[in-house]
Amino acid sequence: MKAELIAVGTELLLGQILNTNAQYLAQECAMLGIDLYFQTVVGDNPARIREALEQAGKRADLVITTGGLGPTLDDLTKDVLADMTGRRLYIDEISMAKIRELFDSQGLHMVESNSRQANMIEGAEPLPNDTGLAVGLGLDHEGTRYLLLPGPPKEMKPMFERYAKDWLSGLMTDEMPLYSKMLKFAGIGESSLEHKLFDLIEKQTDPTIAPYAKEGEVTIRLATKAHTEEEALRKMEQVEKEIRSRVGEHLYAEEDIPIEEAVLAILQSRNQTLTTAESCSGGLLSDLITSIPGRSSVFLGGVVSYSNEMKHSMLGVPTELLEGEDAPGAVSAETAEAMVRGLLERTNGDYAVSVTGVAGPTTSEGKPIGLVYVGVGCKDGDVHVQKLQLPGLRETIKLRAAKTALHQLWKLIKADG
Amino acid sequence: MKAELIAVGTELLLGQILNTNAQYLAQECAMLGIDLYFQTVVGDNPARIREALEQAGKRADLVITTGGLGPTLDDLTKDVLADMTGRRLYIDEISMAKIRELFDSQGLHMVESNSRQANMIEGAEPLPNDTGLAVGLGLDHEGTRYLLLPGPPKEMKPMFERYAKDWLSGLMTDEMPLYSKMLKFAGIGESSLEHKLFDLIEKQTDPTIAPYAKEGEVTIRLATKAHTEEEALRKMEQVEKEIRSRVGEHLYAEEDIPIEEAVLAILQSRNQTLTTAESCSGGLLSDLITSIPGRSSVFLGGVVSYSNEMKHSMLGVPTELLEGEDAPGAVSAETAEAMVRGLLERTNGDYAVSVTGVAGPTTSEGKPIGLVYVGVGCKDGDVHVQKLQLPGLRETIKLRAAKTALHQLWKLIKADG
Repeated sequence: MKAELIAVGTELLLGQILNTNAQYLAQECAMLGIDLYFQTVVGDNPARIREALEQAGKRADLVITTGGLGPTLDDLTKDVLADMTGRRLYIDEISMAKIRELFDSQGLHMVESNSRQANMIEGAEPLPNDTGLAVGLGLDHEGTRYLLLPGPPKEMKPMFERYAKDWLSGLMTDEMPLYSKMLKFAGIGESSLEHKLFDLIEKQTDPTIAPYAKEGEVTIRLATKAHTEEEALRKMEQVEKEIRSRVGEHLYAEEDIPIEEAVLAILQSRNQTLTTAESCSGGLLSDLITSIPGRSSVFLGGVVSYSNEMKHSMLGVPTELLEGEDAPGAVSAETAEAMVRGLLERTNGDYAVSVTGVAGPTTSEGKPIGLVYVGVGCKDGDVHVQKLQLPGLRETIKLRAAKTALHQLWKLIKADG
Repeated sequence: MKAELIAVGTELLLGQILNTNAQYLAQECAMLGIDLYFQTVVGDNPARIREALEQAGKRADLVITTGGLGPTLDDLTKDVLADMTGRRLYIDEISMAKIRELFDSQGLHMVESNSRQANMIEGAEPLPNDTGLAVGLGLDHEGTRYLLLPGPPKEMKPMFERYAKDWLSGLMTDEMPLYSKMLKFAGIGESSLEHKLFDLIEKQTDPTIAPYAKEGEVTIRLATKAHTEEEALRKMEQVEKEIRSRVGEHLYAEEDIPIEEAVLAILQSRNQTLTTAESCSGGLLSDLITSIPGRSSVFLGGVVSYSNEMKHSMLGVPTELLEGEDAPGAVSAETAEAMVRGLLERTNGDYAVSVTGVAGPTTSEGKPIGLVYVGVGCKDGDVHVQKLQLPGLRETIKLRAAKTALHQLWKLIKADG
């Protein structure tokens, strides 16, 4: 199936936001075996939106749009598609009820334009928006399929994952299904991983081997078309074995879950708990952990001991470690260890993890940007500290530090199991 | 001048990389007063590259491409444009000398295909690549201008900055530059803000008024073409005044900075410090704060008191507030206040902010998802608590809770100033 992607929004043409939706949907299409031939970005202008839709509709079997479903008068995607296909717009009552309910529950007056978010095109299948108000839709018009998704990634992704995928699968019944398997790696960069698998990736045909990096983790996706899942798994077995023999120590999951989810799942199954102490990661580690729903019982909490004062007062890191000419300093193996011990002594957590380092943009304590120590330990056990020298800018260093800490923790927990 | 952007590369269509070039060039075009009407992404396929180039060439005065200038056989942009315009390709000797020199200096054998990077189209102006080997070009073909830039951002940006901008300026001597001004709002949703400015947005002509929402904040961008910045500011003055009179209480900055940056800037200028106590936001608030570079001295740190145990042990929240049949519970104004007081008593921070609530996906203490209390206070001052009922899923609730807490804090700090 040939597809095109159209992102609608003047803010993209002005460069005010980055079109991350395009990458997400491109990856999803690749995984579903849908061939994406063009991506277009167009502003909130009805004539040009129509030009883009008409052109894509002529070239492709499937046209996916993002954006232009909101409440304002320059949110025009549904209006233009309805006009182009000669279909009526009506109010989807389920979506409308949700909008009214939200405004009522907050005691707010509903602005009339909000009802635009409940607009539906005659003959289309509504796609619920669990994280926002604008309903999406899937439409088959004279053999060309149109999938209209909202622009904000927080609305678009859940809608795609929960509803649009099913709708798309329904369109692809006559093709041999594509089966894929995800292998997730932590504690290794994309280029190192690719280097170790270079010959396999070079000579790949079937199954395909696609490595990609995302949010501090590396994923390898194996994919093949097959009649049954068993057949697919058989086809993937040999290459998976070879991959495992080379980089197996970094493999933490065979499904597309982040490392924090892998850690929390094991701890929850063992009824154990976790605490965190963060300096340079600044709360990102606990934010990642608390982004996983349904695992609240595992995470007791953490301390963002950004200053030496907090490292001492909240975690009991000895002042002589932190200050003074011969002290190892806040960015040191000793401090990373003391942070873990402080947590284990002051809380009932079974496991504790710490991160301290230099995220940049300037050096600290005369130590280089990217120098990070991560510590992990458990009650009545040793504390292990790893020294890292991470490349990248501030945000990347924070993320890689947090992810590496989680990978170290995962290894410790697995070893304890 | 009307422009279009074409990014060439199958890796973009597969979602393997994010098209950050598009955002960069869109911003640069906006700043130069070039109107960008479409962006297209196309794979390394000569027929489709030509289709994209022909279409853009028909619609626009200026076509900017990125990618497809490298050494491999699927780097085709110059070949396709040469073919399309009926112009000859030749080897640019300056670029070729540079390529040879590099290979010689590393003692490497130069693969023949590397010479492709020195290809130049007859009649075009070569644009040097200071950070790579593929030479770029600017071409005027029958009144349509083509600017061909390399794909890797590390090569594209310096080439654009150092050479392409000059080439573009030469094309635009008769146009007036575009000036813009950002107004940033917090504590108000996009649709409420638009509702309050509805008539202004409806009847806008010059300056233009563009509202957009991003990451829990709303931005309004005013823009106008003018001969000088002073003239532009004069043209925007009246509408800005009107906007301020209607939604001024939510305006926190006149530049595109997040609310956390606004908070930290004031505190740093006053030499004051900040601490955080987070329950449902789970570290996101401190992560936002520590994402702002160069403000480390302001943020002492925080406690992610995710469990009642941590609220009590680390912040001294009384157990009778948290547990028991008649206790207000962890999600309450009382606890939000106690968290702030706990910080102010246990640290040297001048200001403290707390967040406690129900992020979902399940209710907690019989309280609804989205119920959040944010508390703010300063040493020797009152603690103010605000109750929120936030829409959305877990991640949205965490973000809005954190952003609203920062806005409350900003108001308190401003009032103290």
